[in-house]
Amino acid sequence: MAPKPFSLSVKVVVRDASGRVLALRRSATSRANSGKWEFPGGKVDAGEAFDAALVREVREETGLEVELDHVLGAAESDLPARRVAYLLLGASSASGQVRLSDEHDEFRWLAASELGALDFCPQFRELARSLSGSGVRVG
Amino acid sequence: MAPKPFSLSVKVVVRDASGRVLALRRSATSRANSGKWEFPGGKVDAGEAFDAALVREVREETGLEVELDHVLGAAESDLPARRVAYLLLGASSASGQVRLSDEHDEFRWLAASELGALDFCPQFRELARSLSGSGVRVG
Repeated sequence: MAPKPFSLSVKVVVRDASGRVLALRRSATSRANSGKWEFPGGKVDAGEAFDAALVREVREETGLEVELDHVLGAAESDLPARRVAYLLLGASSASGQVRLSDEHDEFRWLAASELGALDFCPQFRELARSLSGSGVRVG
Repeated sequence: MAPKPFSLSVKVVVRDASGRVLALRRSATSRANSGKWEFPGGKVDAGEAFDAALVREVREETGLEVELDHVLGAAESDLPARRVAYLLLGASSASGQVRLSDEHDEFRWLAASELGALDFCPQFRELARSLSGSGVRVG
């Protein structure tokens, strides 16, 4: 039996100038995890540099110009027909002025310590909890 | 000042049928970290599916056919001119018959508990230590 395909998704934990972190709520019309919270980012298109692709994805989903800084961790999602490997990076945004696409219907800027209280997509719960723990560096 | 470019590299921790893990030593002619140990894998080329690209990279470096299974973690390397984000995945190989490319000059199949004893490239030391700790699932 052939293994399930594995795809890659890169998510970005964006901080504003005061260190708050941006969480996005998936629209009610999302195919999976509608109403759950996540971070901006997504599939990195073929034929585009990794960092430029990520900055573009975040801009399209949030209107923010971000500067990538550090690798924060990894996660995985095992779906019926495929698996997704997630790489999570930190980034900073000078403006903090969010303009959502139709992929999301709400956003919140939160202290890292508040992230654990949101109902995140299952694959991001561990990261949200670890970011909200004391002493964890988000940036 | 523009931020340093960030590129992506995906490395694969390959297990053989008895659960030993494959480590490769970088050739003396390597531009960076020559003589240090690492895992197979590398840059995922644009225009190729993520999982197919990884399986191809491992085949080119080791001669092994692997089946990807789980995300193991992430790491980062801060070089003078660029930064590299690493995603680390686990995989299994049925054959275990290694044939090196000229990128590496030695290989070892080791129990996970022995990984901490090798002189790994700096960006993989934490992963090697955590894999070698008790109770950590490699696959």
